[in-house]
Amino acid sequence: MQKQVIQFLKDNRERHLEELQDFLKIPSISSLSEHKEDTLRGAQWVEQELHNIGFQEAKIMETDGHPVVYGEYIADGNAPTVLVYGHYDVQPVDPVHLWDSEPFEPTIRDEKIYARGATDDKGQVFMHLKVMEAVINQDDTPPVNFKVLIEGEEEIGSPNLPKFADEHANQLNADLVIVSDSALVEKGKPTITYGLRGLAGIQIDVEGANSDLHSGEYGGGVVNPIHALVKIVDSFRDDNNFIQVEDFYRDIPELSQDERDALARVSVNEDQLKDDLGVPALDGEAGYSYVERTSVRPTLEVNGIYGGFQGEGIKTVLPNQATAKITCRLVPDQDPEHIVQQLTKHVHSKAPVGVNVSVTPFDKGKPYVTPFDHPVIQKAAQAYETVYQNDTAYVRGGGSIPIVAELDRILNVPVVLMGFGLPDENLHAPNEHFHLENFDQGMETLVHYMYLLGEQ
Amino acid sequence: MQKQVIQFLKDNRERHLEELQDFLKIPSISSLSEHKEDTLRGAQWVEQELHNIGFQEAKIMETDGHPVVYGEYIADGNAPTVLVYGHYDVQPVDPVHLWDSEPFEPTIRDEKIYARGATDDKGQVFMHLKVMEAVINQDDTPPVNFKVLIEGEEEIGSPNLPKFADEHANQLNADLVIVSDSALVEKGKPTITYGLRGLAGIQIDVEGANSDLHSGEYGGGVVNPIHALVKIVDSFRDDNNFIQVEDFYRDIPELSQDERDALARVSVNEDQLKDDLGVPALDGEAGYSYVERTSVRPTLEVNGIYGGFQGEGIKTVLPNQATAKITCRLVPDQDPEHIVQQLTKHVHSKAPVGVNVSVTPFDKGKPYVTPFDHPVIQKAAQAYETVYQNDTAYVRGGGSIPIVAELDRILNVPVVLMGFGLPDENLHAPNEHFHLENFDQGMETLVHYMYLLGEQ
Repeated sequence: MQKQVIQFLKDNRERHLEELQDFLKIPSISSLSEHKEDTLRGAQWVEQELHNIGFQEAKIMETDGHPVVYGEYIADGNAPTVLVYGHYDVQPVDPVHLWDSEPFEPTIRDEKIYARGATDDKGQVFMHLKVMEAVINQDDTPPVNFKVLIEGEEEIGSPNLPKFADEHANQLNADLVIVSDSALVEKGKPTITYGLRGLAGIQIDVEGANSDLHSGEYGGGVVNPIHALVKIVDSFRDDNNFIQVEDFYRDIPELSQDERDALARVSVNEDQLKDDLGVPALDGEAGYSYVERTSVRPTLEVNGIYGGFQGEGIKTVLPNQATAKITCRLVPDQDPEHIVQQLTKHVHSKAPVGVNVSVTPFDKGKPYVTPFDHPVIQKAAQAYETVYQNDTAYVRGGGSIPIVAELDRILNVPVVLMGFGLPDENLHAPNEHFHLENFDQGMETLVHYMYLLGEQ
Repeated sequence: MQKQVIQFLKDNRERHLEELQDFLKIPSISSLSEHKEDTLRGAQWVEQELHNIGFQEAKIMETDGHPVVYGEYIADGNAPTVLVYGHYDVQPVDPVHLWDSEPFEPTIRDEKIYARGATDDKGQVFMHLKVMEAVINQDDTPPVNFKVLIEGEEEIGSPNLPKFADEHANQLNADLVIVSDSALVEKGKPTITYGLRGLAGIQIDVEGANSDLHSGEYGGGVVNPIHALVKIVDSFRDDNNFIQVEDFYRDIPELSQDERDALARVSVNEDQLKDDLGVPALDGEAGYSYVERTSVRPTLEVNGIYGGFQGEGIKTVLPNQATAKITCRLVPDQDPEHIVQQLTKHVHSKAPVGVNVSVTPFDKGKPYVTPFDHPVIQKAAQAYETVYQNDTAYVRGGGSIPIVAELDRILNVPVVLMGFGLPDENLHAPNEHFHLENFDQGMETLVHYMYLLGEQ
């Protein structure tokens, strides 16, 4: 039956790519209020699609923010139930001038589809929908029951989903959760992510005088908010790139030699990576490898900084405000609440006189790790290997999907993170894209996985 | 005759204010290339005005940048010749939303005229033009000959004027230069500026990867250009706000006790100033007073900083570039060339691995001081005191008019800096304005000055 289902996918590939482009055209940027309606259109597209592929139930469900789309197709009360989690919202697109094609006009070049959301996460959500469609269409006795939960706030930290999942825990109940919102470690290498970093962040606003001042009249006499901000931000790390926020590392267990050995086997060609990124060197926290720094170590990154004159040439102004946006990637057992408290305390302790400094926390997510010897994870690896003909890598992801730790806690079933992106697909950056090779092979993998799960 | 000339000014006040508004309507922002044509219109307005007021010669003269307007009215070969220097270009207007009225739609409220350029420097240039018009119109034997040199690049550091003045030194030859591009120390207090700070600056560009990166995938592994920039910028000063650039203070003579005493007599109500500016404290270089820090001490100010995400909310990006714009106010005998070299050296010495850092110098200006016991300066004080009925303050200005030191060098005659603005008129900031009280009293002062200069 797998063959027949896979053939259906092949036969319908052209239609699928057109539908995917329709989905990618919707600028469902959850972080920007001017895209509120567009974000809703993203939800409506998913709801309609669930009806189209034959789901018995599909609905948009309100939250305090952007809505959730829920759907289910129950074929057989005795079959295992799979809950697919994903998100229909996307990141902002600036700087737009660095895109080679419009971010919301999907374009296929060299067997890659370019658009905001292509790999993160609309493209991968879409693959699941098409696999479900194929199974429902071709198989009178599908091997599993399907539930889907597609949210619209992943890119802003899923502020409303934990409450939603708590309130609808019975409805969401399943035997496992599948999340495809991550990447293969490299082209052709099946990858299961058994851990994710958490997220915590703050915005720092420094206010000086009630308007910009002339740097000749007032320069030297009044504290410059940019200087104050720079002093605060630079105090976050020492020369070894160790984070100087009190108790930042307190709750992180020492990395075991076994885990360090396992991570050392993850092959990253650092010279190649340097060339690909165009940077003169890779650097970070002293004493840890690149792989460790980007997966099992916490980070503190300034995502944006701004204040004063940004135009061409000179403007000899002493600006009246400056802002920095900072997020930390967290690892077990760092607690996001605690980290935000410590960040806030740190900022205030470093704030110089002469300016007013305020701190606004962003939404938070807990870090997550799970044992990877669970049968449903092993079956995922088997499905991958059938298609990719290559061993599975088990990694801890550097990114954050805050809701994963929450779903783990609320539903108390294994969460299988099997992604089909690639690490250089520019997610969150200009020219985001998705390789169609993994679009095809990924769907085949998912078909095999569904039938492996159905074998009781 | 002074009375008759002053009466003419009074009789024509309404027409004058209308003409001034026409001048202020021209968005002659020299630093922005999209305003190149507007800047030229500023020059054309001055040229036409010189013809209108009866100058024998008035012309626009090309430079490698925005043009210069030159004009002359020679009444009597034996009378002293006054060269008035000023500028028709203005600062940018951002942030525009903080203006209460449009920056290029001049508005009179509470006997103040609001517009970009109202006080810096179109308003003050205009006063000279109207005084010349009144003298030429009313007096068959004017007491002095007039030359004017009005440039269009003061706000970008007068990059082309030194060469122009060098090449036209004979044409510009005069007995003194008058510059009205500064302020009274306080309302009702005649003020002669006998020194000015110089200017030097650089732009620092930090480049990381060839595009923005996902902070989850790459965070911790790759150097964040914002971190690198913040590290560099924070290294410029220590906790006492002493500039840490090597040899920065090397050429500054120790301030004499006499000069410190004189500066201590300049009254600044720091509590009032704090309230007016809305800052919790005034602070700067340790061991120096507010007045010292803003006039006789050099500064290093970040005028603008930017990199990464600036929108609403979070974008968990590791940005690929960050920029800071920095200018220093210099005091005698700091050399701008030397300071730019030292700044550049400092930046490169502090640049961390993993990023490419480049430095672009801005245009420079030398600091300036002159003895204030020269007769033409004493006559200026006498003219001021006749109208304002108050003693003259002699101060060193915190701002920079780089061309002053150049005119001093090239023409080798006294440069009299007598301004009519006020310190809180928001020059270089939103809601720039000019008090009409000083517009009227300033023109009267200038009339008296011309006749005092004519007494041989």
